[in-house]
Amino acid sequence: MSLVIVGSLALDSISTKAGSVKDALGGSAFYASIAASYFHQASIVGVVGDDYPPAGIELLRKHGVNIDGLETVCGKTFRWSGKYEDWNQADTLNTELNVFADFNPTLPPAYRNCRNLLLGNIHPSLQLQVLEQVESYECVACDTMNYWITGEHEALSKVIGKMDVVFMNEEEVCQYTGCDNIFKAGKDILDMGVKLIVIKRGEYGSVCISDDYMVFMAAYPIEDVVDPTGAGDCFAGGFMGYLASRPKPDKQDIRNAALTGTVTAALNVSDFSVNGIANLDKQTIDAKIKQLKEWTS
Amino acid sequence: MSLVIVGSLALDSISTKAGSVKDALGGSAFYASIAASYFHQASIVGVVGDDYPPAGIELLRKHGVNIDGLETVCGKTFRWSGKYEDWNQADTLNTELNVFADFNPTLPPAYRNCRNLLLGNIHPSLQLQVLEQVESYECVACDTMNYWITGEHEALSKVIGKMDVVFMNEEEVCQYTGCDNIFKAGKDILDMGVKLIVIKRGEYGSVCISDDYMVFMAAYPIEDVVDPTGAGDCFAGGFMGYLASRPKPDKQDIRNAALTGTVTAALNVSDFSVNGIANLDKQTIDAKIKQLKEWTS
Repeated sequence: MSLVIVGSLALDSISTKAGSVKDALGGSAFYASIAASYFHQASIVGVVGDDYPPAGIELLRKHGVNIDGLETVCGKTFRWSGKYEDWNQADTLNTELNVFADFNPTLPPAYRNCRNLLLGNIHPSLQLQVLEQVESYECVACDTMNYWITGEHEALSKVIGKMDVVFMNEEEVCQYTGCDNIFKAGKDILDMGVKLIVIKRGEYGSVCISDDYMVFMAAYPIEDVVDPTGAGDCFAGGFMGYLASRPKPDKQDIRNAALTGTVTAALNVSDFSVNGIANLDKQTIDAKIKQLKEWTS
Repeated sequence: MSLVIVGSLALDSISTKAGSVKDALGGSAFYASIAASYFHQASIVGVVGDDYPPAGIELLRKHGVNIDGLETVCGKTFRWSGKYEDWNQADTLNTELNVFADFNPTLPPAYRNCRNLLLGNIHPSLQLQVLEQVESYECVACDTMNYWITGEHEALSKVIGKMDVVFMNEEEVCQYTGCDNIFKAGKDILDMGVKLIVIKRGEYGSVCISDDYMVFMAAYPIEDVVDPTGAGDCFAGGFMGYLASRPKPDKQDIRNAALTGTVTAALNVSDFSVNGIANLDKQTIDAKIKQLKEWTS
């Protein structure tokens, strides 16, 4: 189990300028696992209710995702509904935790010596709970969101202090550190013991900051965004999927991981739900990675 | 005369979070010429009043700038005063055109067969007037601003239609084309016959778009901005200075020009007026270019 991804599986109802969908497949672990699957086998940890569409499970299987860590329990699946007035910020209309309210993530024994662990965007106390079950790992990463930064600052700090890689967008890293310059804010995160902070900047790309180097990456140009939901999860999934495929990641691998995350995120926003990122052939993705590499170096 | 730069020379009074200055050396041609001078000799075309500080002329001379095209006339020098509440947008407090009101830019005969011409941010009708005096050139570029886009759209379109390279920031290119996606907006500019549109994105860097390729460039990271005045002029000056130093610019040269413009703009914003970009040794600039190259490729 060299890449375990923990997070939510959800049914999303989304409205954007391009249209709307109801009860569409989503969730942080769902998006990230599918994005990662093109580069490395992913193992998912999450929970769904007994109303979860078989098509969701089928899609994970089709992408080679190990679902031994996916629980199905009685009740309704986690549901989220949101609306995008602008592409960078969803307005949450409704959140129904449902079976997610009592989620106690449990790692199957085979997952406990994973090489890479991605703690998707869920409550920091759940992220910690997973971390306590892991016996050995090489690289552990987390994603988060403004909701936990303001509401669960202390628990989130405990998580961050144990991470190798932290994914945040620029508003989040500034909000978390209380610093309005992302480079200073990034250094504050490194000072907590983190090896790499990956700051996502939406349409402007991303920057990875470590003690030894920085890697700037442009966003893949998109003329028509359809649905930004899951872009951050696909970025993290693609990034970690690429890293998991490398024996001993160095700076060049971090650059390639940023390229990979960028392209999987861009593909994702070109359609609703996971339609932009699922069922692709690897050549389509590789061609876009090659193109972005050319534009940026 | 292989790089002629036309534009304003001004005395600026500026207030930012970092402090304020009164009647400091500025103006689009002044900033651009100094930035360009590290890479290629610049020849300036502009006008100042008889109150213009000798230190301004001295600084141009020290930077090897040819001032045969600089007129000194009776009256007061162009003055601008502005305040920055945020770093991306100056609030103009006062503009006194003074001697600039009757400026009729005249190219000295030796300037009329320049290889490269940069029409700095001035009234499009003045840019056109200069263009009509040029007998031959290889590359002509212009910069502009929102004021001309809204107030002089037709004259500006005449200028743009004759350019090889156009510099605009992302708000400007969207405002000018009426298109909210910069890649589509960039294509609209190319459709006017322009060979390269250089879209500046402030702290997020820039993107150069031609029919055949794109070049993305990150901004040089700056922890403490002091005064953003002239950043766009230094970008254009550094960019064109580098291009003028190359015999037959190709895609790789465009990339290096973007690196050069980025670094000269970053140096400039680290201090008031031209203090950040004047009187440097070339090694300081080259070291930053090398560093940014490493971070971005």
